[in-house]
Amino acid sequence: MRDIFDAELKQLGDDLEAMSSRVEQAVTNAGRALLTADLTLAESVIADDLAIDALERDLDERCVRLLAQQQPVATDLRVVVSALRMSASLERMGDLARHVAQVTRARYPEVAVPAGLEETFTQMQDAAVRVARRVTTLLGTRDLALAESIEQDDDLLDELHSDTFAAMLGGEWEHGPQATVDVTLLSRYYERFGDHGVSVARRIVYLVTGATAEALDPAAVRGS
Amino acid sequence: MRDIFDAELKQLGDDLEAMSSRVEQAVTNAGRALLTADLTLAESVIADDLAIDALERDLDERCVRLLAQQQPVATDLRVVVSALRMSASLERMGDLARHVAQVTRARYPEVAVPAGLEETFTQMQDAAVRVARRVTTLLGTRDLALAESIEQDDDLLDELHSDTFAAMLGGEWEHGPQATVDVTLLSRYYERFGDHGVSVARRIVYLVTGATAEALDPAAVRGS
Ligand SMILES: [Zn+2]
Ligand SMILES: [Zn+2]
Repeated sequence: MRDIFDAELKQLGDDLEAMSSRVEQAVTNAGRALLTADLTLAESVIADDLAIDALERDLDERCVRLLAQQQPVATDLRVVVSALRMSASLERMGDLARHVAQVTRARYPEVAVPAGLEETFTQMQDAAVRVARRVTTLLGTRDLALAESIEQDDDLLDELHSDTFAAMLGGEWEHGPQATVDVTLLSRYYERFGDHGVSVARRIVYLVTGATAEALDPAAVRGS
Repeated sequence: MRDIFDAELKQLGDDLEAMSSRVEQAVTNAGRALLTADLTLAESVIADDLAIDALERDLDERCVRLLAQQQPVATDLRVVVSALRMSASLERMGDLARHVAQVTRARYPEVAVPAGLEETFTQMQDAAVRVARRVTTLLGTRDLALAESIEQDDDLLDELHSDTFAAMLGGEWEHGPQATVDVTLLSRYYERFGDHGVSVARRIVYLVTGATAEALDPAAVRGS
Protein backbone atom coordinates (compact mmCIF):
# COMPACT_ATOMS: atom_id res chain seq x y z
CA MET A 1 0.00 0.00 0.00
CA ARG A 2 2.75 2.40 1.01
CA ASP A 3 4.65 1.52 -2.15
CA ILE A 4 1.69 2.35 -4.34
CA PHE A 5 1.20 5.59 -2.48
CA ASP A 6 4.84 6.55 -2.87
CA ALA A 7 4.63 5.81 -6.56
CA GLU A 8 1.55 7.99 -6.85
CA LEU A 9 3.15 10.85 -4.95
CA LYS A 10 6.16 10.54 -7.21
CA GLN A 11 3.86 10.71 -10.23
CA LEU A 12 2.25 13.85 -8.80
CA GLY A 13 5.66 15.48 -8.51
CA ASP A 14 6.56 14.44 -12.04
CA ASP A 15 3.29 15.86 -13.36
CA LEU A 16 3.87 19.18 -11.64
CA GLU A 17 7.37 19.30 -13.06
CA ALA A 18 6.07 18.52 -16.55
CA MET A 19 3.42 21.22 -16.19
CA SER A 20 6.03 23.74 -15.07
CA SER A 21 8.21 22.78 -17.99
CA ARG A 22 5.31 23.57 -20.34
CA VAL A 23 4.85 26.93 -18.63
CA GLU A 24 8.55 27.63 -19.09
CA GLN A 25 8.20 26.89 -22.80
CA ALA A 26 5.07 29.06 -23.00
CA VAL A 27 6.64 32.11 -21.42
CA THR A 28 9.85 31.66 -23.41
CA ASN A 29 7.90 31.64 -26.66
CA ALA A 30 5.45 34.33 -25.59
CA GLY A 31 8.27 36.74 -24.85
CA ARG A 32 10.16 35.92 -28.02
CA ALA A 33 6.97 36.45 -30.02
CA LEU A 34 6.30 39.72 -28.18
CA LEU A 35 9.72 41.20 -28.78
CA THR A 36 9.89 40.21 -32.45
CA ALA A 37 6.16 40.43 -33.38
CA ASP A 38 6.20 36.76 -34.38
CA LEU A 39 2.56 35.95 -35.09
CA THR A 40 3.06 32.23 -35.67
CA LEU A 41 4.85 31.80 -32.39
CA ALA A 42 2.22 33.84 -30.56
CA GLU A 43 -0.53 31.66 -32.05
CA SER A 44 1.26 28.53 -30.91
CA VAL A 45 1.48 29.83 -27.33
CA ILE A 46 -2.25 30.57 -27.37
CA ALA A 47 -3.08 27.11 -28.75
CA ASP A 48 -0.72 25.30 -26.38
CA ASP A 49 -2.34 26.84 -23.31
CA LEU A 50 -5.15 24.33 -23.73
CA ALA A 51 -2.63 21.57 -23.04
CA ILE A 52 -1.59 23.28 -19.80
CA ASP A 53 -5.23 23.58 -18.78
CA ALA A 54 -5.70 19.88 -19.48
CA LEU A 55 -2.65 19.03 -17.38
CA GLU A 56 -4.15 20.99 -14.50
CA ARG A 57 -7.43 19.10 -14.75
CA ASP A 58 -5.63 15.73 -14.87
CA LEU A 59 -3.47 16.65 -11.94
CA ASP A 60 -6.42 17.80 -9.87
CA GLU A 61 -8.33 14.63 -10.64
CA ARG A 62 -5.31 12.61 -9.59
CA CYS A 63 -5.11 14.55 -6.31
CA VAL A 64 -8.78 13.96 -5.53
CA ARG A 65 -8.45 10.25 -6.39
CA LEU A 66 -5.38 10.02 -4.19
CA LEU A 67 -7.19 11.65 -1.29
CA ALA A 68 -10.11 9.27 -1.69
CA GLN A 69 -8.16 6.06 -2.16
CA GLN A 70 -5.13 6.57 0.03
CA GLN A 71 -6.57 8.75 2.77
CA PRO A 72 -3.23 10.42 3.40
CA VAL A 73 -2.47 12.19 6.68
CA ALA A 74 0.23 14.50 7.98
CA THR A 75 2.98 15.30 5.50
CA ASP A 76 1.49 13.16 2.73
CA LEU A 77 -1.76 15.07 3.00
CA ARG A 78 0.05 18.40 2.82
CA VAL A 79 1.89 17.24 -0.28
CA VAL A 80 -1.37 16.45 -2.04
CA VAL A 81 -3.14 19.64 -0.97
CA SER A 82 -0.08 21.65 -1.99
CA ALA A 83 -0.07 19.96 -5.37
CA LEU A 84 -3.63 21.14 -5.91
CA ARG A 85 -2.59 24.69 -5.21
CA MET A 86 0.63 24.56 -7.16
CA SER A 87 -1.19 23.28 -10.22
CA ALA A 88 -3.58 26.23 -9.95
CA SER A 89 -0.63 28.65 -9.82
CA LEU A 90 1.07 27.00 -12.78
CA GLU A 91 -2.16 27.13 -14.76
CA ARG A 92 -2.37 30.87 -14.07
CA MET A 93 1.23 31.32 -15.18
CA GLY A 94 0.28 29.61 -18.43
CA ASP A 95 -2.67 31.98 -18.80
CA LEU A 96 -0.41 34.97 -18.30
CA ALA A 97 1.98 33.75 -21.01
CA ARG A 98 -1.08 33.35 -23.22
CA HIS A 99 -2.20 36.91 -22.41
CA VAL A 100 1.21 38.21 -23.51
CA ALA A 101 0.80 36.26 -26.75
CA GLN A 102 -2.69 37.68 -27.23
CA VAL A 103 -1.41 41.26 -26.99
CA THR A 104 1.30 40.34 -29.51
CA ARG A 105 -1.31 38.97 -31.89
CA ALA A 106 -3.62 41.96 -31.48
CA ARG A 107 -0.83 44.38 -32.37
CA TYR A 108 0.67 42.36 -35.26
CA PRO A 109 2.38 43.29 -37.58
CA GLU A 110 3.55 46.00 -35.23
CA VAL A 111 5.65 45.19 -32.19
CA ALA A 112 3.45 45.70 -29.12
CA VAL A 113 6.35 46.98 -27.01
CA PRO A 114 6.76 50.68 -27.80
CA ALA A 115 10.07 52.27 -28.65
CA GLY A 116 12.10 53.03 -25.55
CA LEU A 117 10.81 50.09 -23.51
CA GLU A 118 12.42 47.22 -25.44
CA GLU A 119 15.20 46.90 -22.90
CA THR A 120 12.82 46.92 -19.92
CA PHE A 121 10.60 44.23 -21.42
CA THR A 122 13.60 42.15 -22.45
CA GLN A 123 14.69 42.20 -18.82
CA MET A 124 11.18 41.31 -17.64
CA GLN A 125 11.07 38.47 -20.11
CA ASP A 126 14.47 37.14 -19.03
CA ALA A 127 13.46 37.31 -15.37
CA ALA A 128 10.15 35.54 -16.06
CA VAL A 129 11.89 32.76 -17.97
CA ARG A 130 14.37 32.33 -15.12
CA VAL A 131 11.51 32.14 -12.64
CA ALA A 132 9.76 29.44 -14.67
CA ARG A 133 12.94 27.46 -15.27
CA ARG A 134 13.85 27.54 -11.58
CA VAL A 135 10.36 26.53 -10.54
CA THR A 136 10.70 23.50 -12.82
CA THR A 137 14.08 22.60 -11.36
CA LEU A 138 12.92 23.28 -7.80
CA LEU A 139 10.01 20.91 -8.31
CA GLY A 140 12.40 18.24 -9.51
CA THR A 141 15.31 18.71 -7.13
CA ARG A 142 13.87 20.50 -4.08
CA ASP A 143 17.08 22.51 -4.02
CA LEU A 144 15.88 25.35 -1.80
CA ALA A 145 18.60 27.76 -2.94
CA LEU A 146 16.49 28.10 -6.08
CA ALA A 147 13.59 29.47 -4.05
CA GLU A 148 15.77 32.35 -2.97
CA SER A 149 16.69 33.26 -6.54
CA ILE A 150 13.05 33.03 -7.56
CA GLU A 151 12.25 35.62 -4.90
CA GLN A 152 15.04 37.83 -6.21
CA ASP A 153 13.77 37.65 -9.78
CA ASP A 154 10.30 38.44 -8.50
CA ASP A 155 11.70 41.54 -6.81
CA LEU A 156 13.35 42.46 -10.08
CA LEU A 157 10.03 42.01 -11.91
CA ASP A 158 8.38 44.36 -9.41
CA GLU A 159 11.08 46.94 -10.01
CA LEU A 160 10.78 46.67 -13.77
CA HIS A 161 7.00 46.90 -13.42
CA SER A 162 7.48 50.21 -11.57
CA ASP A 163 9.90 51.33 -14.26
CA THR A 164 7.29 50.90 -16.99
CA PHE A 165 4.82 52.99 -14.98
CA ALA A 166 7.47 55.63 -14.38
CA ALA A 167 8.17 55.71 -18.12
CA MET A 168 4.49 56.19 -18.95
CA LEU A 169 3.81 58.76 -16.26
CA GLY A 170 7.08 60.69 -16.17
CA GLY A 171 5.87 63.38 -18.55
CA GLU A 172 7.99 62.37 -21.53
CA TRP A 173 5.72 59.62 -22.80
CA GLU A 174 5.05 60.25 -26.47
CA HIS A 175 2.95 57.23 -27.26
CA GLY A 176 -0.81 57.12 -27.67
CA PRO A 177 -3.45 55.33 -25.61
CA GLN A 178 -3.00 51.98 -27.40
CA ALA A 179 0.63 51.76 -26.36
CA THR A 180 -0.26 52.87 -22.85
CA VAL A 181 -2.93 50.18 -22.54
CA ASP A 182 -0.58 47.52 -23.93
CA VAL A 183 2.31 48.42 -21.64
CA THR A 184 0.02 48.57 -18.60
CA LEU A 185 -1.34 45.10 -19.28
CA LEU A 186 1.92 43.48 -20.38
CA SER A 187 3.77 44.82 -17.40
CA ARG A 188 1.08 43.58 -15.03
CA TYR A 189 1.12 40.13 -16.67
CA TYR A 190 4.84 39.78 -16.05
CA GLU A 191 4.53 41.08 -12.52
CA ARG A 192 1.77 38.57 -11.73
CA PHE A 193 3.80 35.79 -13.36
CA GLY A 194 6.53 36.43 -10.81
CA ASP A 195 4.02 36.39 -7.94
CA HIS A 196 2.71 32.98 -8.93
CA GLY A 197 6.25 31.63 -9.31
CA VAL A 198 7.04 32.79 -5.79
CA SER A 199 3.83 31.23 -4.54
CA VAL A 200 4.86 27.83 -5.93
CA ALA A 201 8.38 28.21 -4.57
CA ARG A 202 7.12 29.04 -1.07
CA ARG A 203 4.86 26.03 -1.04
CA ILE A 204 7.80 23.79 -1.81
CA VAL A 205 9.92 25.45 0.86
CA TYR A 206 7.07 24.92 3.29
CA LEU A 207 6.77 21.26 2.35
CA VAL A 208 10.49 20.66 2.68
CA THR A 209 11.20 22.62 5.83
CA GLY A 210 7.80 22.71 7.48
CA ALA A 211 8.46 26.38 8.10
CA THR A 212 5.53 28.72 7.76
CA ALA A 213 6.31 31.13 5.00
CA GLU A 214 5.39 34.64 6.05
CA ALA A 215 2.54 34.53 3.57
CA LEU A 216 1.86 32.25 0.67
CA ASP A 217 0.35 34.87 -1.59
CA PRO A 218 2.96 37.52 -2.25
CA ALA A 219 0.44 39.73 -4.04
CA ALA A 220 -1.67 39.84 -0.92
CA VAL A 221 1.26 41.16 1.03
CA ARG A 222 2.69 43.57 -1.43
CA GLY A 223 -0.52 45.16 -2.45
CA SER A 224 0.59 45.20 -6.04
CA MET B 1 -18.81 10.39 13.77
CA ARG B 2 -21.06 11.25 10.89
CA ASP B 3 -22.77 13.90 13.02
CA ILE B 4 -19.48 15.55 13.81
CA PHE B 5 -18.55 15.45 10.17
CA ASP B 6 -21.85 16.99 9.10
CA ALA B 7 -21.39 19.72 11.66
CA GLU B 8 -17.91 20.41 10.32
CA LEU B 9 -19.10 20.51 6.72
CA LYS B 10 -21.84 22.90 7.80
CA GLN B 11 -19.23 25.07 9.48
CA LEU B 12 -17.18 25.06 6.27
CA GLY B 13 -20.22 26.30 4.34
CA ASP B 14 -20.89 28.99 6.93
CA ASP B 15 -17.28 30.14 6.80
CA LEU B 16 -17.37 30.42 3.02
CA GLU B 17 -20.58 32.41 3.25
CA ALA B 18 -19.07 34.72 5.86
CA MET B 19 -16.01 35.18 3.68
CA SER B 20 -18.16 35.98 0.66
CA SER B 21 -20.14 38.46 2.71
CA ARG B 22 -16.88 40.23 3.59
CA VAL B 23 -15.97 40.33 -0.08
CA GLU B 24 -19.37 41.82 -0.88
CA GLN B 25 -18.75 44.53 1.70
CA ALA B 26 -15.26 45.12 0.32
CA VAL B 27 -16.35 45.58 -3.27
CA THR B 28 -19.33 47.72 -2.24
CA ASN B 29 -17.07 50.07 -0.32
CA ALA B 30 -14.28 49.98 -2.89
CA GLY B 31 -16.63 51.09 -5.65
CA ARG B 32 -18.25 53.77 -3.53
CA ALA B 33 -14.82 55.08 -2.60
CA LEU B 34 -13.72 54.97 -6.23
CA LEU B 35 -16.69 56.91 -7.57
CA THR B 36 -16.62 59.57 -4.86
CA ALA B 37 -12.88 59.73 -4.14
CA ASP B 38 -13.50 58.78 -0.53
CA LEU B 39 -10.05 58.26 0.93
CA THR B 40 -11.21 57.06 4.34
CA LEU B 41 -13.42 54.42 2.83
CA ALA B 42 -10.65 53.32 0.45
CA GLU B 43 -8.26 52.99 3.38
CA SER B 44 -10.75 50.84 5.25
CA VAL B 45 -11.11 48.46 2.28
CA ILE B 46 -7.32 48.13 2.11
CA ALA B 47 -7.05 47.44 5.84
CA ASP B 48 -9.98 45.02 5.89
CA ASP B 49 -8.45 42.82 3.20
CA LEU B 50 -6.17 41.41 5.86
CA ALA B 51 -9.25 39.97 7.56
CA ILE B 52 -10.30 38.25 4.33
CA ASP B 53 -6.80 36.81 3.96
CA ALA B 54 -7.01 35.51 7.54
CA LEU B 55 -10.39 33.91 6.82
CA GLU B 56 -8.87 32.12 3.85
CA ARG B 57 -6.03 30.75 5.97
CA ASP B 58 -8.44 29.59 8.68
CA LEU B 59 -10.70 27.97 6.16
CA ASP B 60 -7.83 26.18 4.44
CA GLU B 61 -6.52 24.91 7.75
CA ARG B 62 -9.98 23.64 8.59
CA CYS B 63 -10.15 21.82 5.24
CA VAL B 64 -6.80 20.13 5.75
CA ARG B 65 -7.76 19.12 9.29
CA LEU B 66 -11.05 17.77 8.02
CA LEU B 67 -9.29 15.73 5.35
CA ALA B 68 -6.89 14.31 7.92
CA GLN B 69 -9.37 13.54 10.66
CA GLN B 70 -12.48 12.55 8.74
CA GLN B 71 -10.94 10.98 5.65
CA PRO B 72 -13.93 11.91 3.52
CA VAL B 73 -14.69 10.16 0.24
CA ALA B 74 -17.01 10.71 -2.70
CA THR B 75 -19.24 13.77 -2.40
CA ASP B 76 -17.89 14.78 1.01
CA LEU B 77 -14.39 14.83 -0.38
CA ARG B 78 -15.48 16.96 -3.33
CA VAL B 79 -17.14 19.40 -0.95
CA VAL B 80 -13.91 19.87 1.00
CA VAL B 81 -11.69 20.15 -2.06
CA SER B 82 -14.14 22.62 -3.59
CA ALA B 83 -14.11 24.68 -0.42
CA LEU B 84 -10.34 24.98 -0.75
CA ARG B 85 -10.75 26.33 -4.24
CA MET B 86 -13.66 28.59 -3.49
CA SER B 87 -11.79 30.19 -0.62
CA ALA B 88 -8.91 30.91 -3.01
CA SER B 89 -11.31 32.58 -5.47
CA LEU B 90 -12.95 34.62 -2.74
CA GLU B 91 -9.57 35.71 -1.47
CA ARG B 92 -8.69 36.91 -4.97
CA MET B 93 -11.98 38.81 -5.19
CA GLY B 94 -11.02 40.54 -1.96
CA ASP B 95 -7.63 41.41 -3.45
CA LEU B 96 -9.29 42.90 -6.52
CA ALA B 97 -11.55 45.09 -4.36
CA ARG B 98 -8.40 46.18 -2.53
CA HIS B 99 -6.70 46.98 -5.84
CA VAL B 100 -9.62 49.25 -6.77
CA ALA B 101 -9.24 50.97 -3.40
CA GLN B 102 -5.51 51.36 -3.97
CA VAL B 103 -6.06 53.16 -7.29
CA THR B 104 -8.59 55.39 -5.52
CA ARG B 105 -6.06 56.24 -2.83
CA ALA B 106 -3.26 56.87 -5.31
CA ARG B 107 -5.39 59.38 -7.23
CA TYR B 108 -6.91 61.15 -4.20
CA PRO B 109 -8.13 63.93 -3.98
CA GLU B 110 -9.00 63.48 -7.64
CA VAL B 111 -11.55 60.92 -8.77
CA ALA B 112 -9.67 58.11 -10.52
CA VAL B 113 -12.47 57.51 -13.02
CA PRO B 114 -12.02 60.07 -15.80
CA ALA B 115 -14.85 62.25 -17.09
CA GLY B 116 -17.04 60.38 -19.54
CA LEU B 117 -16.58 56.95 -17.94
CA GLU B 118 -18.51 57.52 -14.70
CA GLU B 119 -21.57 55.77 -16.06
CA THR B 120 -19.59 52.77 -17.33
CA PHE B 121 -17.80 52.29 -14.03
CA THR B 122 -21.02 52.76 -12.08
CA GLN B 123 -22.48 49.91 -14.09
CA MET B 124 -19.38 47.78 -13.54
CA GLN B 125 -19.55 48.47 -9.85
CA ASP B 126 -23.24 47.57 -9.67
CA ALA B 127 -22.66 44.34 -11.57
CA ALA B 128 -19.71 43.41 -9.34
CA VAL B 129 -21.74 44.03 -6.19
CA ARG B 130 -24.57 41.88 -7.56
CA VAL B 131 -22.10 39.10 -8.35
CA ALA B 132 -20.70 39.18 -4.82
CA ARG B 133 -24.13 39.36 -3.20
CA ARG B 134 -25.43 36.44 -5.25
CA VAL B 135 -22.36 34.36 -4.53
CA THR B 136 -23.01 34.90 -0.83
CA THR B 137 -26.66 33.89 -1.20
CA LEU B 138 -25.81 30.97 -3.46
CA LEU B 139 -23.39 29.66 -0.85
CA GLY B 140 -26.13 29.86 1.77
CA THR B 141 -29.13 28.66 -0.21
CA ARG B 142 -27.72 26.64 -3.12
CA ASP B 143 -30.45 28.21 -5.23
CA LEU B 144 -28.97 27.47 -8.64
CA ALA B 145 -31.00 30.17 -10.41
CA LEU B 146 -28.51 32.57 -8.85
CA ALA B 147 -25.66 30.92 -10.72
CA GLU B 148 -27.34 31.85 -13.99
CA SER B 149 -27.64 35.52 -13.01
CA ILE B 150 -24.03 35.55 -11.90
CA GLU B 151 -23.05 34.36 -15.37
CA GLN B 152 -25.15 37.14 -16.89
CA ASP B 153 -23.53 39.82 -14.77
CA ASP B 154 -20.16 38.42 -15.70
CA ASP B 155 -21.10 38.77 -19.37
CA LEU B 156 -22.14 42.34 -18.65
CA LEU B 157 -18.79 42.99 -16.98
CA ASP B 158 -17.01 41.68 -20.06
CA GLU B 159 -19.05 44.01 -22.26
CA LEU B 160 -18.37 47.01 -20.06
CA HIS B 161 -14.70 46.05 -20.01
CA SER B 162 -14.71 46.19 -23.82
CA ASP B 163 -16.53 49.53 -23.66
CA THR B 164 -13.76 51.09 -21.61
CA PHE B 165 -11.18 49.92 -24.12
CA ALA B 166 -13.29 51.22 -26.99
CA ALA B 167 -13.51 54.58 -25.21
CA MET B 168 -9.76 54.78 -24.78
CA LEU B 169 -8.89 53.61 -28.27
CA GLY B 170 -11.70 55.15 -30.33
CA GLY B 171 -9.71 58.22 -31.25
CA GLU B 172 -11.61 60.71 -29.09
CA TRP B 173 -9.81 59.98 -25.86
CA GLU B 174 -8.61 63.27 -24.43
CA HIS B 175 -7.07 62.05 -21.22
CA GLY B 176 -3.40 61.59 -20.47
CA PRO B 177 -1.43 58.44 -19.72
CA GLN B 178 -2.33 58.42 -16.02
CA ALA B 179 -6.03 58.13 -16.78
CA THR B 180 -5.34 55.51 -19.42
CA VAL B 181 -3.31 53.41 -17.00
CA ASP B 182 -5.97 53.77 -14.27
CA VAL B 183 -8.85 52.83 -16.55
CA THR B 184 -6.96 49.85 -17.98
CA LEU B 185 -6.24 48.49 -14.52
CA LEU B 186 -9.62 49.29 -12.93
CA SER B 187 -11.50 47.75 -15.82
CA ARG B 188 -9.41 44.62 -15.67
CA TYR B 189 -9.93 44.33 -11.90
CA TYR B 190 -13.70 44.40 -12.35
CA GLU B 191 -13.54 41.95 -15.22
CA ARG B 192 -11.46 39.50 -13.18
CA PHE B 193 -13.78 39.95 -10.21
CA GLY B 194 -16.61 38.64 -12.38
CA ASP B 195 -14.52 35.67 -13.54
CA HIS B 196 -13.81 34.59 -9.98
CA GLY B 197 -17.46 34.98 -9.04
CA VAL B 198 -18.42 32.70 -11.92
CA SER B 199 -15.76 30.23 -10.89
CA VAL B 200 -17.27 29.97 -7.38
CA ALA B 201 -20.79 29.71 -8.81
CA ARG B 202 -19.80 26.88 -11.16
CA ARG B 203 -18.20 24.93 -8.37
CA ILE B 204 -21.42 25.11 -6.39
CA VAL B 205 -23.47 24.06 -9.41
CA TYR B 206 -21.08 21.17 -9.86
CA LEU B 207 -21.41 20.12 -6.24
CA VAL B 208 -25.19 20.30 -6.33
CA THR B 209 -25.86 18.73 -9.70
CA GLY B 210 -22.74 16.67 -10.24
CA ALA B 211 -22.71 18.08 -13.76
CA THR B 212 -19.39 18.92 -15.26
CA ALA B 213 -19.35 22.59 -15.98
CA GLU B 214 -17.89 23.23 -19.40
CA ALA B 215 -14.85 24.66 -17.74
CA LEU B 216 -14.30 25.87 -14.23
CA ASP B 217 -12.08 28.76 -15.15
CA PRO B 218 -14.00 31.17 -17.35
CA ALA B 219 -10.91 33.24 -18.02
CA ALA B 220 -9.21 30.22 -19.51
CA VAL B 221 -12.02 29.80 -22.00
CA ARG B 222 -12.63 33.39 -22.87
CA GLY B 223 -9.04 34.33 -23.27
CA SER B 224 -9.75 37.62 -21.57
ZN1 LIG C 1 -5.05 28.29 -18.82
ZN1 LIG D 1 -6.10 39.19 -0.05
